[in-house]
Amino acid sequence: MDKQLVMKSFEVVEHDNGFDVLLEGTLLFSHQTKRPFIFVGSGEESIDMYRGNFKIEDYLEERVPLRYAKVLHNEDLITITLKRFSNDEDVLSIKLEQDQEGLRVSFDRLDKSINRFWMRLHADQEEKVYGCGEQLSYLNLRGKNFPLWTSEPGVGRNKNTYTTWQADVKDKAGGDYYNTNFPQPTFLSTRKYFCHVETTAYADFDFRQESFHELQIWEVPQSILFECGSTYKELVTRLTARLGRQPELPDWTYEGIWLGIQGGTEKVQEKIDHALNKGLKVGAVWCQDWQGKRITSFGKRLMWNWKWNPEEYPNLDTKIHEWKSQGIKFLGYINPYVAVEGHLYKEAKEKGYLATKEDGSDYVVDFGEFYCGVVDFTNEEAHTWYVSVIKENLINFGLDGWMADFGEYLPTDVKLSNGVSAKVMHNAWPAMWAKANHDALKESGRWGDIVYFMRAGYTGNQKYCPLLWAGDQSVDWSLDDGLASVIPAALSAGLSGCGISHSDIGGYTSLHGNKRSKELLLRWAEMAAFTPVMRTHEGNRPDDCFQFDGDDETLDHFVKMTNVYVELGPYLKEAVKLNATEGIPVQRPLFMEYEEDELSYDIKYQYMLGSDILVAPVHEEGKDKWTVYLPEDQWVHLWSGVEYNGGYVEVEAPVGKPPVFYRKATKHRVLFERVATII
Amino acid sequence: MDKQLVMKSFEVVEHDNGFDVLLEGTLLFSHQTKRPFIFVGSGEESIDMYRGNFKIEDYLEERVPLRYAKVLHNEDLITITLKRFSNDEDVLSIKLEQDQEGLRVSFDRLDKSINRFWMRLHADQEEKVYGCGEQLSYLNLRGKNFPLWTSEPGVGRNKNTYTTWQADVKDKAGGDYYNTNFPQPTFLSTRKYFCHVETTAYADFDFRQESFHELQIWEVPQSILFECGSTYKELVTRLTARLGRQPELPDWTYEGIWLGIQGGTEKVQEKIDHALNKGLKVGAVWCQDWQGKRITSFGKRLMWNWKWNPEEYPNLDTKIHEWKSQGIKFLGYINPYVAVEGHLYKEAKEKGYLATKEDGSDYVVDFGEFYCGVVDFTNEEAHTWYVSVIKENLINFGLDGWMADFGEYLPTDVKLSNGVSAKVMHNAWPAMWAKANHDALKESGRWGDIVYFMRAGYTGNQKYCPLLWAGDQSVDWSLDDGLASVIPAALSAGLSGCGISHSDIGGYTSLHGNKRSKELLLRWAEMAAFTPVMRTHEGNRPDDCFQFDGDDETLDHFVKMTNVYVELGPYLKEAVKLNATEGIPVQRPLFMEYEEDELSYDIKYQYMLGSDILVAPVHEEGKDKWTVYLPEDQWVHLWSGVEYNGGYVEVEAPVGKPPVFYRKATKHRVLFERVATII
Repeated sequence: MDKQLVMKSFEVVEHDNGFDVLLEGTLLFSHQTKRPFIFVGSGEESIDMYRGNFKIEDYLEERVPLRYAKVLHNEDLITITLKRFSNDEDVLSIKLEQDQEGLRVSFDRLDKSINRFWMRLHADQEEKVYGCGEQLSYLNLRGKNFPLWTSEPGVGRNKNTYTTWQADVKDKAGGDYYNTNFPQPTFLSTRKYFCHVETTAYADFDFRQESFHELQIWEVPQSILFECGSTYKELVTRLTARLGRQPELPDWTYEGIWLGIQGGTEKVQEKIDHALNKGLKVGAVWCQDWQGKRITSFGKRLMWNWKWNPEEYPNLDTKIHEWKSQGIKFLGYINPYVAVEGHLYKEAKEKGYLATKEDGSDYVVDFGEFYCGVVDFTNEEAHTWYVSVIKENLINFGLDGWMADFGEYLPTDVKLSNGVSAKVMHNAWPAMWAKANHDALKESGRWGDIVYFMRAGYTGNQKYCPLLWAGDQSVDWSLDDGLASVIPAALSAGLSGCGISHSDIGGYTSLHGNKRSKELLLRWAEMAAFTPVMRTHEGNRPDDCFQFDGDDETLDHFVKMTNVYVELGPYLKEAVKLNATEGIPVQRPLFMEYEEDELSYDIKYQYMLGSDILVAPVHEEGKDKWTVYLPEDQWVHLWSGVEYNGGYVEVEAPVGKPPVFYRKATKHRVLFERVATII
Repeated sequence: MDKQLVMKSFEVVEHDNGFDVLLEGTLLFSHQTKRPFIFVGSGEESIDMYRGNFKIEDYLEERVPLRYAKVLHNEDLITITLKRFSNDEDVLSIKLEQDQEGLRVSFDRLDKSINRFWMRLHADQEEKVYGCGEQLSYLNLRGKNFPLWTSEPGVGRNKNTYTTWQADVKDKAGGDYYNTNFPQPTFLSTRKYFCHVETTAYADFDFRQESFHELQIWEVPQSILFECGSTYKELVTRLTARLGRQPELPDWTYEGIWLGIQGGTEKVQEKIDHALNKGLKVGAVWCQDWQGKRITSFGKRLMWNWKWNPEEYPNLDTKIHEWKSQGIKFLGYINPYVAVEGHLYKEAKEKGYLATKEDGSDYVVDFGEFYCGVVDFTNEEAHTWYVSVIKENLINFGLDGWMADFGEYLPTDVKLSNGVSAKVMHNAWPAMWAKANHDALKESGRWGDIVYFMRAGYTGNQKYCPLLWAGDQSVDWSLDDGLASVIPAALSAGLSGCGISHSDIGGYTSLHGNKRSKELLLRWAEMAAFTPVMRTHEGNRPDDCFQFDGDDETLDHFVKMTNVYVELGPYLKEAVKLNATEGIPVQRPLFMEYEEDELSYDIKYQYMLGSDILVAPVHEEGKDKWTVYLPEDQWVHLWSGVEYNGGYVEVEAPVGKPPVFYRKATKHRVLFERVATII
């Protein structure tokens, strides 16, 4: 790379009272004595975890602007030293240097008492921002602040709903708009740059101010990376060039639906037979309870001792191959915790592979009426051991995939093998858990073949996790925690570098009176047909949830929607490949394809599937028409063939005909017309 | 006063890195470079009011410790100058001087950019603190922070209750533990000192830290006053010597119950006749709607145009004197807002007596489906005009008292005549409103004769308001907003200098399914008999509330309880007199009488009535026994005559026999024995 050219891409323009920092002509931040860009200070946090829900408070002792800056130009880098007042010692030293196409701003904390850091970035009034990992309530994040801390996402996630209130009162579990399994200190601005912070400490990105964004981090971060792009696609391509990209999904993915079934070999066989008889294309059965189950007041839970449970699944060792020969994969379940009753806990404890209390004694985490040890992934031996558990008990047993659940529950008061505070490791945990799965596959030569799916995430999931799922939605129509919420979730995750996502068809959480209706299940299934993966879930309380085989009409609907999905396979596969090669997500916000369209920037419950399909899922009950926003283009309504030119249009949208459009100019027209004939 | 003696009462002891400030040997605060006692900074608040409920947020820009102090000793005073770093300009100058028996710390803001101020006071781990005005959820305030901002107190006041949740969702009105009509920046410590801050700005007193209390104020306050006392009684006597004291209640107060009745002359006469026939001693009728009413979705509301409404109350001008001759006073209602439909609004607007928008145009406040102008008490002429309205329309018409309602709704974006920000005047408003009433009485020569009662308060209510009432409780048994809550309310108000309080018998707010049960009404009445004033309220939705005349049994209960109250009159009067002369509250926390008793410091649902009676109201439904804590002493159970020596005791407590005890050594034994015969 031509060095001179590279050096041109950012500049520090000094003026009377400070300086501006620009990247490719875009003002990133500026400093004046009266409007400094960095504040530092100290605080004392209190972090309480109750079953994955966190109460985090900060006693802020000090927040001081660093008003006095000195800029030093070298050939390769620019150094800025900052102090609080004119004849202070230097408090912070900052390096600005070219990093490929981007600007890397690195920080050196000279005053060791600092444990709070704020940086203000320039903002325009009209600017919108996206990303911050998987965000379920907002797509455009402007106007809100986003604490970034992996946790349970909340049941209800809106203090105005009965479900949230009850979840708060009974389990401290209601959550709020920002709670997510997968936060990430990365955002993308409509000023066409991305910003990524290298940290795993607690952070809070505040997009509420008119003239600046303020990034709060509970440490002085290692560095912050900025990069510009001429399009949003280029931005995510550049971002994922840095963070890594999910591999392609194996071909068998597109061959049918993954049926979430529990209850033992016989029941699974019955359900398979019934589904096949009805004509359902079954790609896989996913049996969480392959390793045993337990019943709690929450509902059906699992045993959390990660090996085949022959009492629960007799003959599974042979059945698994029988099903495979019929084209039906067997998927299981694992997470990074080991229940105290199991042999893995015993083994891990003996070998010293579990996180402990400060004094070295046992630390068990309450997962809701049962307790588990935390495998300490900062201990290389523990990581290796857990990789071997996955290889031996899952891969060698014949599993083709699994839910790699959890990762958000690292308590902040455990002692870890690497000596780093659990407060700093907490956000790192999801990617460490992902890497354990990744390493097991890589070592088994099965990367890109076996699929595991995770809800927990952070920087690093891009390269270590092939598939996200959107976590545990409530089995309802609520915007913040129901069907609709998985759309902004997929879009914001995609803009953060994880472009392959899916969700539990019908949602998961049935609590406080919520029961999954047939209509909800049908609507969720028809949306899922237009995502990378279709997978059902029984829900936490199967008896309170309508199921895919609840009646013939429902099963017929699943047959048709799965046929649509399978027929779309080649198109989906192409989109998935683009995600693997260029990081461009499979599900994309409208503005990624229509940058000129101003309205598209705030459409959060519609998405582009690849470049050519626009999906506007019906996310309200009792509708048979639906209003869709179409950017200016020539569109064909998938089911009717009626053409539109853009704007708000109302279409017929009975159950079974979700509002889907394709670009008239698509090269896939023949395929789409074939899909349309299915319904 | 001997000057030398006075100078001895506080001292500033300098040491290597700072200094300690002690008053009468008690460490108040200390400073070290590494542990400074003052922090200053700047913030930008956002304050949104919706019908008296405030959403207050602060964007904190800066919080800087003032580490560098210089102490200058003069003869009369000590000056401390503070700066942020060693060669900074002085940021704050502090004067310490003797003020009577106390220490006055005055502040001079040298850096005009400062609008946030924090001061840390020394705290011991075991220390407890009390006061902060009328606090309804906590008596001992240690372990919590208390934002001090006069507002609606909240409906429910506990995020775990259905009522609170519904009030939040529907009206932003649920509130929380700290919401109160009557906050005050004053607290009293078990380290035997009080601290009073001279400010009306938003404040937040934080008692959560182990080693310090932190007072946050959104300005640099004028001064902070500390004073020590050898007993809690001495402390409140000294405090009220500063702030003023409520006058005695007029003698007619003790002659009977005040019946809250509405609906016009005829209905009032009917209710009086019925009550008298049953033998109820009626001291007054209190007719809120004497000036007309209106119906809103909230319930029955008033017309808010402050003069007799002859359509609603025909012949009231003569009736009022007829009732008076029978020993029944007539009480009305007024508040400091004038409804846009009325003649007072028109007059005030024409004369320029209303607060306006910044640009001088009309400003009306939403009070829930109707709108009012805000009389601008910072305009001396407006004050005089409103005083004359009270004199002419209320006093001269013949009223012997009224509810002087509201005072908490000063919006923060109005323009006031005195040019001071409404953010600073907001908390001053209750006392300004009290003063308008006070001045009307004084000018009419009726101070100490006419009684008005207020829920809103702040510093100043002590001298301007003869009687508090505890605001609008929910008609339920909830600890934070029901019957029980008025006990800590009266106790904390008493410790803040307002020692005469009472409450709506049966509570007021009937919303979201809450209906006042007969049992609640009976229990509330039996508690009220042991307070300075008994007064009923129909509630906001009278049809949803059981009433004093709801059935014969209830009316009989009121007859008996009123007889108890009237019989207690001489005792109550003596206690009220002590409040007027020495500021010692009528209702007192147990520890005020039993300082040696450690347990008494956390008893918040019992109280001493005067020195000799201990009251432990039954505040749960369906009880016929009750457990009471008795400090070590010789006690006589009022109804049974059974004697106790202290500790936790369980007594029979059927409706009609509230748990009440008196000190065996009392000089009022004959009176109390006579009271006991009533039931």
